Amino acid sequence: MTKKIKPQTLKGFRDFLPKDMVIRQKVIETLKIVFESYGFEPLETPALEYADTLLGKSGKEAEKLMYLFKDSGGRDVGLRYELTISLARVMAQYPNIPLPFKRYQMQPVWRAEKPQKGRYREFLQCDVDIMGTTSFLADAEIIEIIYQSIIALGFKKFVIKINNRKLLFKLMEDANVPKEKRLATLISIDKLGKNGRDKVETELILKGLPKENINKIFNLISKIKPDETLEEIFRTFESSKIPKEYFQFDPTLVRGLDYYTGPIYEAIVEKPKIGSIAGGGRYDKLISNLGGPDIPATGVSFGLDRICDVIKEQNLWPNLSPTPTKVLVTIFSPEYLENSIEIANKLRAESIPTELYLDPETKLDKQLKYASKKGIPYVIIAGPEEIKAGKFTIKAMKTGKQETVLLARAIEIIKKNVS
Amino acid sequence: MTKKIKPQTLKGFRDFLPKDMVIRQKVIETLKIVFESYGFEPLETPALEYADTLLGKSGKEAEKLMYLFKDSGGRDVGLRYELTISLARVMAQYPNIPLPFKRYQMQPVWRAEKPQKGRYREFLQCDVDIMGTTSFLADAEIIEIIYQSIIALGFKKFVIKINNRKLLFKLMEDANVPKEKRLATLISIDKLGKNGRDKVETELILKGLPKENINKIFNLISKIKPDETLEEIFRTFESSKIPKEYFQFDPTLVRGLDYYTGPIYEAIVEKPKIGSIAGGGRYDKLISNLGGPDIPATGVSFGLDRICDVIKEQNLWPNLSPTPTKVLVTIFSPEYLENSIEIANKLRAESIPTELYLDPETKLDKQLKYASKKGIPYVIIAGPEEIKAGKFTIKAMKTGKQETVLLARAIEIIKKNVS
Repeated sequence: MTKKIKPQTLKGFRDFLPKDMVIRQKVIETLKIVFESYGFEPLETPALEYADTLLGKSGKEAEKLMYLFKDSGGRDVGLRYELTISLARVMAQYPNIPLPFKRYQMQPVWRAEKPQKGRYREFLQCDVDIMGTTSFLADAEIIEIIYQSIIALGFKKFVIKINNRKLLFKLMEDANVPKEKRLATLISIDKLGKNGRDKVETELILKGLPKENINKIFNLISKIKPDETLEEIFRTFESSKIPKEYFQFDPTLVRGLDYYTGPIYEAIVEKPKIGSIAGGGRYDKLISNLGGPDIPATGVSFGLDRICDVIKEQNLWPNLSPTPTKVLVTIFSPEYLENSIEIANKLRAESIPTELYLDPETKLDKQLKYASKKGIPYVIIAGPEEIKAGKFTIKAMKTGKQETVLLARAIEIIKKNVS
Repeated sequence: MTKKIKPQTLKGFRDFLPKDMVIRQKVIETLKIVFESYGFEPLETPALEYADTLLGKSGKEAEKLMYLFKDSGGRDVGLRYELTISLARVMAQYPNIPLPFKRYQMQPVWRAEKPQKGRYREFLQCDVDIMGTTSFLADAEIIEIIYQSIIALGFKKFVIKINNRKLLFKLMEDANVPKEKRLATLISIDKLGKNGRDKVETELILKGLPKENINKIFNLISKIKPDETLEEIFRTFESSKIPKEYFQFDPTLVRGLDYYTGPIYEAIVEKPKIGSIAGGGRYDKLISNLGGPDIPATGVSFGLDRICDVIKEQNLWPNLSPTPTKVLVTIFSPEYLENSIEIANKLRAESIPTELYLDPETKLDKQLKYASKKGIPYVIIAGPEEIKAGKFTIKAMKTGKQETVLLARAIEIIKKNVS
């Protein structure tokens, strides 16, 4: 009688089955530990906000991608489109939050984008920001957090490119680029590293920038040196004893978003080849532009979904088992159930995630097959003779190797071999 | 020029500032550890689903509370209303998931309820279910998980009431209650413990149940004994050495939802006085009724928001500081910045969440005030003389007590005193 629904997720939306969740949770936990180690605090805001809050000063482009609708009370509402708008609202709504306010926020956002590889309509955004100080120490700390996060995730070769928007503004001025062409010009300059000088020059000509401006830009750009603020930031890294190879002053780094006002930065991971996984900068006017109070801010956004995707696709964490469960305790036959329950509870008492096979009537080989399908790394078998000897058999599912051991030894084996 | 938005959340929606998040994260982490210790695996599903999926066989009541709308592609969609429907979809969509599938899921759901104390329009649901086995061991395990969770949360006095729907169905049969009146009758019986026999009797009369049925019910109910399944469940608790006082067979426990088919259970916390915080049961027909495959299931739902609310309101975790940050390293004056950076990094290397004060120009007393406002338990001050001696001052903000110490001693103090 029941209407059968077709089981499907909406395009651009994803289920995270256990093997995906294990990676996701580990990435989140790894980043959380880094953020909190620097004194950042967690914040969460609602999925739904008033449409007015979301729209703020957003452009038409963003509005088109928002999930906006009327709720049953007739209010215009929408799904969180990004985290910074919610942060601006929070800063306005709770004026008693002590400044600086250092918060991290890891929550999904929703965008009606055209789904494609790596682009989702629901994805986790991960932002780390410092509200309420113009100190270079704040910018330095955000960059250090990017460094520590990438190290903690286990990526080997990467570089964090750093620039200051103020240097770019000065470049535009010194090269006499007309005000209305500055943003477009900067967007082309951002591509210098990737496309080379010739292509960027052609692009600038097409954008209608006079040849003399273009020449001036290229003349000046190679001579730009870090300004005082960047120097202070680099000195801070020295105090923190962070190896120089991970930082690079890059006068061509622009970052697209036009709200940046000071230091900007972007992390590129080269090994494994992931590309940009985090970027940010100082945005001293944005919070007030979004309707919040007039407070300076700096912060970074991590591409969390991208990080998880790459770890999965490139099998970067080969030792991470596809389930949190470390061991399956089988039931030899119904009369030995009590013994298996006891073993399972003893392993749990040692903080080892332990599954007890739940059907005493199932044949042993089927129980082993179940462990193998799930990717549970160890299986314990306790038959009558082993029980008599106060022992049991532990089998490593990957290698097939098995030993008959006492409990203490089994605990040792499991703790040593699985993370 | 910017339009100022009024900073507000929608009614029934909440921001979680750091002091709330600390409790929330600890509750979630505590439960996660318990669930995984029994071999349960995490699952997450999208916030948005096709309206068809959500509506399934839901009644008009549920439909009225759903956030349903058309997305920009004209699809009828809606926000997740509860987790079981998504689970049913997952079971149908991924037929290769090995059974039994033991999953936990902690995600927000959205309901357009009338907001009132403890009722929110966005709240975290926390479900733990076992799909694919009719074994009593599955029911026993779910109940054990409730027990272990409450213990892990630190609640002292509680009882888990247990019954079997089959006993209730038999009672209805034996008392000759007409089929169409059985559910209504059971709903009244559920109130026996709270309202007493007289009130329930009056209610049943008002519901039109003949007096002879009512008498028969009361005659029979006091004589009901646990059936074979419940006996097996209780024996399992004995094997697991769980004290008897925490379990209680209660033949009047009904639980409102009409989809339960077997053992049902509910946890009542008496000290602190929280009331019901978890409930569930076996529901062997629901997954197929919701459009999933025909698989048996049993599981529990935790009232996570309620647990967090009570912990906060009754200050049940007085030692939990309102921020994850354990120590603020102040900056004595700009020339000692490097020294403070070094201390901060050394504490971080010891896994102590450490905030460095971010403005070297700020006066010391203002830095201390900041720590106090944030609830950071310790502050470190390193002035010229202390630095010369290789030491610094550590101040406990609650007591005001301060000591001049070496780094190792500071680490010891912090690790010993804050959780």
